[in-house]
Amino acid sequence: MVYRAPVPDIVFTMRHAAGFDRALADGLYEDLTADLATTILEEAGRFANDVIAPLNREGDTAGVTLKDGAVTTAPGWKEAYGAWTEAGWNALPGPVNFGGQGLPVLLNSACVEMWNSASMAFGIGPVLTMGAIEALIAHGTDDLRARYLAKLVSGEWTATMNLTEPQAGSDLAAIRCRAERAADGTYRIKGQKIFITYGEHDLTDNIVHLVLARLPDAPTGTRGISLFLVPKFLSDGTRNDVRCHSIEHKLGIHASPTCTMIFGDHDGAVGWLVGEENRGLACMFTMMNNARLAVGLQGVAIAERAYQQALHYANERRQGRAPGAAEGMSPIIEHPDVQRNLLTMKALTAAARAICYMTAEGIDRAHRDSDEKARQSAYERASLLTPVAKAFSTDIGVEVASLGVQVHGGMGYIEETGAAQHLRDARIAPIYEGTNGIQAIDLVMRKLPLADGAAVRAQIAAMRATIVRVTKETHPAFGQTASRLRDAIESLDRATSYCLKAVAGNAPAQALAGATPYLRLFALAQGGAALAEMALAAAGLIAGGDSDPAHPARIALCRFFAENIAVGAKGLEDTVMGGAGFLDDARLALVS
Amino acid sequence: MVYRAPVPDIVFTMRHAAGFDRALADGLYEDLTADLATTILEEAGRFANDVIAPLNREGDTAGVTLKDGAVTTAPGWKEAYGAWTEAGWNALPGPVNFGGQGLPVLLNSACVEMWNSASMAFGIGPVLTMGAIEALIAHGTDDLRARYLAKLVSGEWTATMNLTEPQAGSDLAAIRCRAERAADGTYRIKGQKIFITYGEHDLTDNIVHLVLARLPDAPTGTRGISLFLVPKFLSDGTRNDVRCHSIEHKLGIHASPTCTMIFGDHDGAVGWLVGEENRGLACMFTMMNNARLAVGLQGVAIAERAYQQALHYANERRQGRAPGAAEGMSPIIEHPDVQRNLLTMKALTAAARAICYMTAEGIDRAHRDSDEKARQSAYERASLLTPVAKAFSTDIGVEVASLGVQVHGGMGYIEETGAAQHLRDARIAPIYEGTNGIQAIDLVMRKLPLADGAAVRAQIAAMRATIVRVTKETHPAFGQTASRLRDAIESLDRATSYCLKAVAGNAPAQALAGATPYLRLFALAQGGAALAEMALAAAGLIAGGDSDPAHPARIALCRFFAENIAVGAKGLEDTVMGGAGFLDDARLALVS
Repeated sequence: MVYRAPVPDIVFTMRHAAGFDRALADGLYEDLTADLATTILEEAGRFANDVIAPLNREGDTAGVTLKDGAVTTAPGWKEAYGAWTEAGWNALPGPVNFGGQGLPVLLNSACVEMWNSASMAFGIGPVLTMGAIEALIAHGTDDLRARYLAKLVSGEWTATMNLTEPQAGSDLAAIRCRAERAADGTYRIKGQKIFITYGEHDLTDNIVHLVLARLPDAPTGTRGISLFLVPKFLSDGTRNDVRCHSIEHKLGIHASPTCTMIFGDHDGAVGWLVGEENRGLACMFTMMNNARLAVGLQGVAIAERAYQQALHYANERRQGRAPGAAEGMSPIIEHPDVQRNLLTMKALTAAARAICYMTAEGIDRAHRDSDEKARQSAYERASLLTPVAKAFSTDIGVEVASLGVQVHGGMGYIEETGAAQHLRDARIAPIYEGTNGIQAIDLVMRKLPLADGAAVRAQIAAMRATIVRVTKETHPAFGQTASRLRDAIESLDRATSYCLKAVAGNAPAQALAGATPYLRLFALAQGGAALAEMALAAAGLIAGGDSDPAHPARIALCRFFAENIAVGAKGLEDTVMGGAGFLDDARLALVS
Repeated sequence: MVYRAPVPDIVFTMRHAAGFDRALADGLYEDLTADLATTILEEAGRFANDVIAPLNREGDTAGVTLKDGAVTTAPGWKEAYGAWTEAGWNALPGPVNFGGQGLPVLLNSACVEMWNSASMAFGIGPVLTMGAIEALIAHGTDDLRARYLAKLVSGEWTATMNLTEPQAGSDLAAIRCRAERAADGTYRIKGQKIFITYGEHDLTDNIVHLVLARLPDAPTGTRGISLFLVPKFLSDGTRNDVRCHSIEHKLGIHASPTCTMIFGDHDGAVGWLVGEENRGLACMFTMMNNARLAVGLQGVAIAERAYQQALHYANERRQGRAPGAAEGMSPIIEHPDVQRNLLTMKALTAAARAICYMTAEGIDRAHRDSDEKARQSAYERASLLTPVAKAFSTDIGVEVASLGVQVHGGMGYIEETGAAQHLRDARIAPIYEGTNGIQAIDLVMRKLPLADGAAVRAQIAAMRATIVRVTKETHPAFGQTASRLRDAIESLDRATSYCLKAVAGNAPAQALAGATPYLRLFALAQGGAALAEMALAAAGLIAGGDSDPAHPARIALCRFFAENIAVGAKGLEDTVMGGAGFLDDARLALVS
């Protein structure tokens, strides 16, 4: 199935849900304009449609192969990656002084969505390179920047994040990989890392590994971890002491090599310290936050792809006679239950996209606003939204892909159709870059208390302000949008108070027990408010005489979300407020 | 990962949720006793654990191969199937006069669950044989019964259901496969069928195909479809004119061959009419209802298997320090969010099991009760519950398997772990034997109006009676069970009135639009009531001095379901009551 980048929806979401117009007006984006941004996104969309998307299925079936330590990617992948970097897409958000275009994270996020819709296995590679660029900008020495940044910005080289070890997955305190100081100021790295995405491949001449390891005299736990840059090839062209030992046989993203990497089989891999000794985890978190947003965008991306494929199939496939339809078989899209599935897919995707883009705008403003207070509150807002963007979007990525299989009926279960691949691909995103359970814990334990709760209160106040405007909107197509969304926001408000109190009162189990349903509740309220902003903008345009059929569609989609999805908020609130009640008996129930 | 058949939970569910004890007391099951049933189930459990379960992973990786029209199953499968029929398991529910053991559908349902937990790809084969047995008992001529029933009952031969054609999936009216009358009273079948489970294989010497086809003079639509029996080998040993043309490359159940079958390449496949000409669909529905229950049991089965595997992993894997835990890494089962995932998995599985077993008991009573009114109301109850059993159980099968992957973190995405296979296997069950959307439509359009709504009203009254008893229960471990379940049941009651009114008022779109959320709402209320029945029984046993730790576990699980899952009922009610409101704009929203 072809993919067609939904550039008009993307641009509308940027402008009317994520504050792109306001950011432009505030001078955050220098000489960028809405028209120029649209042109860039249309160009990116064409590349995603025409070059990357056609490789997605073959990448899945061919996968990657490991032979004598070398990983070969699927046919066409090396050429596509080359063309992609050649066209400058990797450099889009990179710093201007290292050859980047310095364009907004928000604009790049829209592109990241499109690369990943075209192929998640393709899209995940550059996410890691981007993370390494950020880490080097923030923490690298001038020498390291001079040697590596330009080639990472252009994409001539790629980068990896080497965190996980067999005993250290979610718990990085358990890292054992060792680093020893060498006489020349470099380090020697020894140890094994697992689940290293694009740890080895044939797309580029060199690969830059960022590796967490411990110095011999390091304290135990997370305060004894340092970050090192370990290139596959050293500057003099010699091969460093690092190799790919094996690749994983995974459920999905087959075209993306997932490697077990061995550092220091011989004398130790040569590495350079990034940041200070024993402060590696802080450096890693610099890049991890943006990587979390990027993984959230993968959720949006796969949902969009699955939706497009299901919509196409539902328009083509004829079965049964729909209520009120003429003689003969109707396209299945005419059947109410199929419409519900498709609307659910589209509404969840649109809500997740809006939340991700809002997060991206927050990151931009935190870096670019001239006002320090505005930067600080934008930073808090982005920090608050990041776990929601990551977890909600990737959860709905799986849900939407699963619905996509369902819309196809029996054909959905056949691999050739491609619907099943989306489900297989989607399933990794709730796991990597911090499982969604960890995102929920991060939200409740660390993000809600930001600025003594002022960040989340401000966010809820903004949602309420949106609903006040919906209440005044008299367009009948809004249906019960206002009341349903108001109920969801009030549920969120009460659940927020509950969690803040639990965290402040040193009763973490009370908050931890409901962290996952709390995050979902947050996303329903925030997603609903964002769709309402778009619906209001659409209503305004309609009132102004704009006859684009996409505008009534946005009102209808918002209404569907409010009346059919956001209504789940009360049940989630009840669950959160139940707190740790069930935990008293949980171990009891889990051994029978 | 090993599977251990949860026989004590299975027996407890049969006795305290599904009315097994009452059925025994009413004399429905002749000389069967609870002890004998337990012994049989323990024996079945051992077979599932020791013989079938170890083949599951290899069956997935080896799959099946087609060469020169012959399908070879994975290593060990033929031997396992032989041992299974040899031990008499296929014959368990079969009619005594054809070599069966005549045991209850309820007892066999518990076995079907275990076979499918051990391996869904194994378990689906006998489901089709069982369906053919039922069709032949109900509609076959004496001659056909004499020739085929005994060998199908023993499992010496297997059977298939040939419904689907490329243009006729959910819509059987579109069937084109032709049947022509031959001079000798037989028929010649010509046409192509797709997605035929175990259409060809090497497990048995013969395969009996039941095929839907049209006579030349048949009316169009579903009233012109006839059912034929078409054996792979005729009685004289000659090969019939039917062959496997290709096998599908599927997302899961790789060890189960899914075949495209070609009938009548040459002179036409020799077939015998089952039932009357042009009445084939009615015959097919005889077997389809029980097959739907069996597929529901597959959902329970895969959920149970995924839960066991996740529970095992969560007990073994150590990461992070849980709240209140000692120094060092805790088993991840100590973390509240992991506990929530595991409890959600277990509670959904237990609720779905109870609903499936209740359905099975209804089928038994509809056939076996001496009182005609009791048979009729049991028939209506089973008819009402069948779509719920099928759709809810298979939906939660996917959800629980997906949670199982999540509990494993990164390891869950690696195929060797086995968690991902459960998700891949589970994904077919919401599709085959009538998609879950079709189950929901069946529930709302055909089952709610049964006996002018008296069937569903009786079912809701029974749920309410359970909650009255919970209200009187003073054991503090019940928490808010009574109020949460009462709310869910009242939501169901209101939504039921809404749907009944819409169907009676000839406003089908109003009911169809909410059919899927209505079915889920029904299952939450019914599942909650069933878990409450078990919790009440457990509380009674505890009060009587029984110190089995499984009893407090049942109360805790019921409470978790009520407080964390059933609370979703109100949102579903809102959605159902929203009716077709969204459909007015649906097409608007789906073209942007």
